[in-house]
Amino acid sequence: MPIYAAPVKDMQFLLHDVLKVTEAGIPGYADLDRDFTNAVLDEAGKVASDVLAPLNPIGDREGCRLENGVVRTPSGFGHAFEVMKRGGWTALDCDPDYGGQGLPYLMGTAVGEIFVSANMAFNMYQGLTHGAYSAIHAHGSAEQKATYLPKLVACDWTGTMNLTEPHCGTDLGLMRTKAEPQADGSYRITGQKIFISAGEHDMAANIVHLVLAKAPGGGEGTKGISLFIVPKFLVNPDGSLGARNSLSCGKVEEKMGIHGNSTCVMNYDGATGYLLGDLHKGMRAMFTMMNEARLGVGLQGYAVAEAAYQNAAAYARDRLQGRAVTGSENPAGPADPLIVHPDIRRNLMDQKSFVEGARALTFWGASLIDRSVRSGDAEAEGLVSLMIPVIKGFQTDKGFEMAVAAQQVFGGHGYIEEWGMSQFARDARIAMIYEGANGVQALDLVGRKLAQDGGRHVLAFFEMVKTFCKENEGDARLKTGFLDPLKAASKDLQAAGVYFMQTGMKAPNAALAGSYDFMHMMGHVCLGLMWARMAKAAYAGLDAGATDRDFLEAKIATGRYYMARHLPATAMHLARIETGAEPVMALAAEAF
Amino acid sequence: MPIYAAPVKDMQFLLHDVLKVTEAGIPGYADLDRDFTNAVLDEAGKVASDVLAPLNPIGDREGCRLENGVVRTPSGFGHAFEVMKRGGWTALDCDPDYGGQGLPYLMGTAVGEIFVSANMAFNMYQGLTHGAYSAIHAHGSAEQKATYLPKLVACDWTGTMNLTEPHCGTDLGLMRTKAEPQADGSYRITGQKIFISAGEHDMAANIVHLVLAKAPGGGEGTKGISLFIVPKFLVNPDGSLGARNSLSCGKVEEKMGIHGNSTCVMNYDGATGYLLGDLHKGMRAMFTMMNEARLGVGLQGYAVAEAAYQNAAAYARDRLQGRAVTGSENPAGPADPLIVHPDIRRNLMDQKSFVEGARALTFWGASLIDRSVRSGDAEAEGLVSLMIPVIKGFQTDKGFEMAVAAQQVFGGHGYIEEWGMSQFARDARIAMIYEGANGVQALDLVGRKLAQDGGRHVLAFFEMVKTFCKENEGDARLKTGFLDPLKAASKDLQAAGVYFMQTGMKAPNAALAGSYDFMHMMGHVCLGLMWARMAKAAYAGLDAGATDRDFLEAKIATGRYYMARHLPATAMHLARIETGAEPVMALAAEAF
Repeated sequence: MPIYAAPVKDMQFLLHDVLKVTEAGIPGYADLDRDFTNAVLDEAGKVASDVLAPLNPIGDREGCRLENGVVRTPSGFGHAFEVMKRGGWTALDCDPDYGGQGLPYLMGTAVGEIFVSANMAFNMYQGLTHGAYSAIHAHGSAEQKATYLPKLVACDWTGTMNLTEPHCGTDLGLMRTKAEPQADGSYRITGQKIFISAGEHDMAANIVHLVLAKAPGGGEGTKGISLFIVPKFLVNPDGSLGARNSLSCGKVEEKMGIHGNSTCVMNYDGATGYLLGDLHKGMRAMFTMMNEARLGVGLQGYAVAEAAYQNAAAYARDRLQGRAVTGSENPAGPADPLIVHPDIRRNLMDQKSFVEGARALTFWGASLIDRSVRSGDAEAEGLVSLMIPVIKGFQTDKGFEMAVAAQQVFGGHGYIEEWGMSQFARDARIAMIYEGANGVQALDLVGRKLAQDGGRHVLAFFEMVKTFCKENEGDARLKTGFLDPLKAASKDLQAAGVYFMQTGMKAPNAALAGSYDFMHMMGHVCLGLMWARMAKAAYAGLDAGATDRDFLEAKIATGRYYMARHLPATAMHLARIETGAEPVMALAAEAF
Repeated sequence: MPIYAAPVKDMQFLLHDVLKVTEAGIPGYADLDRDFTNAVLDEAGKVASDVLAPLNPIGDREGCRLENGVVRTPSGFGHAFEVMKRGGWTALDCDPDYGGQGLPYLMGTAVGEIFVSANMAFNMYQGLTHGAYSAIHAHGSAEQKATYLPKLVACDWTGTMNLTEPHCGTDLGLMRTKAEPQADGSYRITGQKIFISAGEHDMAANIVHLVLAKAPGGGEGTKGISLFIVPKFLVNPDGSLGARNSLSCGKVEEKMGIHGNSTCVMNYDGATGYLLGDLHKGMRAMFTMMNEARLGVGLQGYAVAEAAYQNAAAYARDRLQGRAVTGSENPAGPADPLIVHPDIRRNLMDQKSFVEGARALTFWGASLIDRSVRSGDAEAEGLVSLMIPVIKGFQTDKGFEMAVAAQQVFGGHGYIEEWGMSQFARDARIAMIYEGANGVQALDLVGRKLAQDGGRHVLAFFEMVKTFCKENEGDARLKTGFLDPLKAASKDLQAAGVYFMQTGMKAPNAALAGSYDFMHMMGHVCLGLMWARMAKAAYAGLDAGATDRDFLEAKIATGRYYMARHLPATAMHLARIETGAEPVMALAAEAF
């Protein structure tokens, strides 16, 4: 069975040596001292290793079954959900007014990584609930908040998000689900929604569905869309559960992975719904949660890769196969461990350097969200909006790639379900698709975010890279290994931006044809910046006589690897981008 | 259900316009005229579309079950196997002396692609049988040939290859399976083999296991290994089946994909075996089949991607979602088809340009094998040996990547098993692992093949690229779009070769750390050469007034895409290679 141990040391390094949270000046951050965060992460790690990780292969094997309208979750999921609730893990970064612990989103993110690594499918029940909590918290009436938030914070009730329909995913303007206003102020919701994660299950007394639907008078396309609260059981004025609502799970999908999550077809047959937020402003209400939702998926990308990596590294140290070409490193044994072989190393270093870089970027992104929400900092909000498609798109692409790479270390055993490596790859695959397929992330980045607020945020990002390089180029240790490659990669990225500006206005396809490459390019530059920052922090620790020298030296070596072996990708992406739209669009549709 | 139509037109273009088979001067090729090859491929396409493709999802869903020692294959597999036998498809490129049709290996390859695209797991039963046929044909005694070959050619009996054991995959020197000589000249075989494809099933009267085992006196490591014929039922002198041999299937593995193939743990409990070839030369006997076996797996890489691509292209034309940014292309409909979006195009062009390039490389490789075997051409043999790790490693990596890309076109539907796209990705994954994991292919390429025969073959390859460029640079249409990028990529590849030569002798890890990048780099150069050749043939066709102008123009546009958007990868790989071993090997094993 796969192993998992929470990377608490690496998280502590990020929080305290890189992000320096207690000095960050963000409300709530001053309390995040080393001992406190260590205790939280350590405790989360225990739940993850002892309770969640052992259920991961069980959830994969058993999946979810629809029986007489109720979805049965895999053995042990119900118990684990109770453990999570009792431990207060579902309330960590929620509003204390509704029973939450009020910790920063950053801490929710760190703990979330640990739970996702241990059991991605299981963690989705809570993840979706958190999304519903955020939506009602942001847009609900006082009564709606009082009715739903305490239950959602405690995960006594869980939540869902209902967007997709059979004929429309990305293009929500095609939506057919209807909301008809009733005399009592409620709405009758009718339609079919698909791919509804946690749409029906047996772990909560009620399920609070948030449903996008078209109410009369809103006009064509996405303009007419509103957001509704549609609970599985109606809620009586005293908070007790009333009648069963007219909605049902029509099917549980058979998927490539995340079998432990119940992915439902939901049928709304004149179900009672309550408008959440303003009429015909449903898309805007969804968008306010988008940064957190997409950061959460970007986190899944590297969190699953982390779990896969831990197993690949352990296997590479244990499995004896072949001899080191430079002379045996295990002469008394029948063969050397796999890890002596350079190509196995290359594979493991790819994984390690990606995961640690992505963790840094994600934590930084979470701290920007805190800065934006808790301090009302518009620059932080703009910057993180720019980063979100990169965090989501780049990290889920690479996360899947790295889970596949980890599987490769096991040879044939990687392909056998018994070893668990296939599950990591299969689970990680969905993160590239949901919450906006990665092509849509690239479109969002190039088509919207680059130009947002007059391009101010992307310029601020370039400025940040430049300033960091300038401030640190006196340190020769940083210059060659980190700053020079970062500057070169950033220059490529800027050249791509210039190309888009020059061609995109008259020929938008020229920019869009390069959007995916740009997203990856920017991912490398972001991870490069994170590695440069981490290296700086690690050198500072070494200079200050830190005791964990092995950790800090490994951090620097891992960063040097990423800079040397991954940043050269930006030149390739730039070359691809500069070929423009013509090669991409040359064929007639029938020629495919 | 996924669709599939054999790409007969593209295959005909390769056979007749690019490879010009009837003029190739290879024994047996003169008969391969257009009408004949068209008839064969067309008929294979019918069997593939009508019989094999519909069974592909059934095989995936049902898998294989071990019941009382017998493995039950999925519904319909038995019938389909009979169709294949009756149609003579199992005997296509086998020796007429044993019932084969004697067609060139190239034709077996083309037909093989069609069957693999339609149903990879099903085709493995025959594929393994063909491997056993080849081994016995090359190394068997007259009596062994007479006993086994007619049955294997007809697929009345099927074959297997038994190499891997629980503790050894790549490092066969650790093998424990023993062969004890008996008084009658036979051997008693004892041991456990794992990952045995088609190891036990219900579609053939007998199964001929080829088993690697250690016989006394051979010395340590791989030197002591011999190859044995170990039939499931012993064969009486009159050819009828005798006693059941002491071997059994202990388990059918649960795998990520190729569920229709029965992947067995095989237990040999003092089973009767017969030496095949020379004592203690088992590894050499296996190696003689390696080129064909690895080319066959490289073929699986792009063949599954082809099937996935056909479905992605069809979906992109049908699914209405969003509007073209340059103005609607379906104004009467509720939305435009996906294929109007540049990033969907990019994705489809990646797939199309890879698959067609890989098909060309594979067909060329198969023709080199024919030239080597049928004409005894040592240069062709050397050249194809050099290409084999590229065909296997690069094509299976990219084939999987492209199957995943095809899945992405479907959005959420790509993740749902019902649509069949997940199966393509899961099936394609194994090709990166078996028949030598791709890291081992890279090692074979850089550690063995580059230096083979004093480096003659790699120099011949570079010379071939150079000559082609020189001969065609007068054609301006070829020069910019094809020859210039090919020359640049080839220059990068040569620079990597020089780096290996200069550093590899004193520091072998410096070469090995870059081996995987070199394999991919060479893959791009090979596909670049193929595209340049195809473009030349397409222009020649257009100049000669060919009637299928749309096909030829699409061919050229697809090639230009590959050259413009994929050949720039070589510079990145070179940059990675030139960082050497240091970043790769910097960490202590415990630091992972």
